[in-house]
Amino acid sequence: MANNHMVRVDCIGLKHFCCEVFKKLGMSEGQAEDSADILVSADMRGISSHGVARLWRYVNGVRNGVMDPHTESRVVHETSISKVIDAQGSIGLSLSRNVMKDVIQMAKGSGFAAASVRDSNHFGIAGYYAMMGLPEDMIGIAMTNTAALGVPTFGRDAQFGTNPLAIAIPAGTMPPFVLDMATTVVTRGKVENYNREDTPLPPGWAVNTQGECTSDARALLEDMLYQRGGGILPLGGLGEALGGHKGFGLGVLVDILSAVSSGGVFGKSVMDSKETSARVCHFFAAIRIDLFRDPEAFKSDMDSLLREITEARPAKGRERVYYAGLKEHEHTLNSSKDGIPVSEIVWNNLVEIGRDLHISLPVLKS
Amino acid sequence: MANNHMVRVDCIGLKHFCCEVFKKLGMSEGQAEDSADILVSADMRGISSHGVARLWRYVNGVRNGVMDPHTESRVVHETSISKVIDAQGSIGLSLSRNVMKDVIQMAKGSGFAAASVRDSNHFGIAGYYAMMGLPEDMIGIAMTNTAALGVPTFGRDAQFGTNPLAIAIPAGTMPPFVLDMATTVVTRGKVENYNREDTPLPPGWAVNTQGECTSDARALLEDMLYQRGGGILPLGGLGEALGGHKGFGLGVLVDILSAVSSGGVFGKSVMDSKETSARVCHFFAAIRIDLFRDPEAFKSDMDSLLREITEARPAKGRERVYYAGLKEHEHTLNSSKDGIPVSEIVWNNLVEIGRDLHISLPVLKS
Repeated sequence: MANNHMVRVDCIGLKHFCCEVFKKLGMSEGQAEDSADILVSADMRGISSHGVARLWRYVNGVRNGVMDPHTESRVVHETSISKVIDAQGSIGLSLSRNVMKDVIQMAKGSGFAAASVRDSNHFGIAGYYAMMGLPEDMIGIAMTNTAALGVPTFGRDAQFGTNPLAIAIPAGTMPPFVLDMATTVVTRGKVENYNREDTPLPPGWAVNTQGECTSDARALLEDMLYQRGGGILPLGGLGEALGGHKGFGLGVLVDILSAVSSGGVFGKSVMDSKETSARVCHFFAAIRIDLFRDPEAFKSDMDSLLREITEARPAKGRERVYYAGLKEHEHTLNSSKDGIPVSEIVWNNLVEIGRDLHISLPVLKS
Repeated sequence: MANNHMVRVDCIGLKHFCCEVFKKLGMSEGQAEDSADILVSADMRGISSHGVARLWRYVNGVRNGVMDPHTESRVVHETSISKVIDAQGSIGLSLSRNVMKDVIQMAKGSGFAAASVRDSNHFGIAGYYAMMGLPEDMIGIAMTNTAALGVPTFGRDAQFGTNPLAIAIPAGTMPPFVLDMATTVVTRGKVENYNREDTPLPPGWAVNTQGECTSDARALLEDMLYQRGGGILPLGGLGEALGGHKGFGLGVLVDILSAVSSGGVFGKSVMDSKETSARVCHFFAAIRIDLFRDPEAFKSDMDSLLREITEARPAKGRERVYYAGLKEHEHTLNSSKDGIPVSEIVWNNLVEIGRDLHISLPVLKS
């Protein structure tokens, strides 16, 4: 157990472990491999909130019957450049990878394609799917609605999710541009961290049941749990002074593209219940960059644009200026080399899952 | 001169006035009508910063020769669903309307189309073009880069613009969803207002030459003018605590789609000079909603989603909860009925332009 309560786990070993877990839960070889790859990619990119820390959710989800690995999704609408899929409660991870593969295949022919999915489950990091277009010289787009926890500008009740959106754009020699962002200021996970550490929330993160700014993480989480009101603010924070209405607009946009386009559940109705997980909706699209320019010229200009950012003079007290995806790219390289940093709590969780399902644990890097 | 130093001007009269001005500047009848419609639409929607307050810019731009109404744009790349256009310094307004018309026409056949434009001039409100898709049951998208005034997260120098993005999505009986937002916290116009009123800037709006939060509007505007450093922050404000890196990511995204896709100028190189206006780049796209669902079903769900927002319980001390485009829709109805509110400063400006070009002024509403 190393510094800062972290262990470092070998990437391939961790992926193999997750894959074995998923197979034990009844997934096919392919489903299990894809799902493991998506989860572990999140950890490799440094988005540990969406990585193996959530493995137990899938274990419980399948055991409780709210996620069914054997469910067949079905196409409910189709054109030569679009699809709408009813996931019928499938595992969101492997399903989403297949849908994005399909979108990319369609876009190879037509230049553009899109798909929306309803009645699905959590799909991990949106950036994973957006990045699938990169090797094909495509701009990839992925988004999803999530269980309601966000409060609209001037509102007091949660009625939209963290609703992340991701867009990945290829570059030449520079690491690609990968914007992968919740449209709320923060996610629930961050609020939970502040609660655990008994630290007041920064102003602009959340409101109480009256719709007023709150710093009380404990009360907020309880109010949210019992649906008394209050919740997390959109990107831009409270009111309109810092652009909170823009963040709220982006959150609604994701809800529309994911759920209205697929005929799924949106707004405050997206939530977990005893009977079922929150049946979320996704949206995927891919655009070939040669619709606009020769890909090599496009990517060469991308390099210039991205390099201009990394070469910017940093603010006083700062070391570097980053663009979207750069930190995550560097984290991936480090994880490959030195292993994935996993918190002790999450590691103990994996130990328990492994013991329970009789699967041997991945090797720790010294 | 009515309450709060505002006059109210008849919409049709104001449009006619602008049209006559544009014709006197050498625009064709069609160019002038389109340009006038776009400018006055901004005022009608309540976005007065982008309306007739900017008429003098066009007057000066054409007179100084940095905008040429006779320039012919040319198509430099084309597929059945995409176009790239070199505007060669055209008037951004009428050109953009024609490009978006073209995009919609292409999308009628294929379901999706997009175009990017380089070497253009200011195009007014992005929302205008996005909304052109609404009557065709299409999702419309428009964005543009602008002269650099935004400072990257952890940076200290301006190297991207307000880079607005707009997306309009049709509804049934409810006013449409129209998100039209700068990706910076605010625009330069707001900072200028604070300077005029000698009010300190709210924290999170801007940084000084060291990249530190500043409340000094006067110093900021001067530092920006002489390119000493400092500038406006991305949506989400300073650093990463409130998601400033997300707003910065959105700004870069707009720069890529507008300028990298068209082979135009991006980043800190987008700026006005003595010889020329900032040669900005635009991006337009349209998606037919029947790629996903029967348009009537889609729009009926849109109504439910939007109604859920307007029916939300407001925060303590607030009257209503809005979605993107609702305020602007209501402002348009009011402007049609009672006239467009125009500040005395802007009105005096119009009086001067009218006198100068021998064009009679529009009627004031009592």
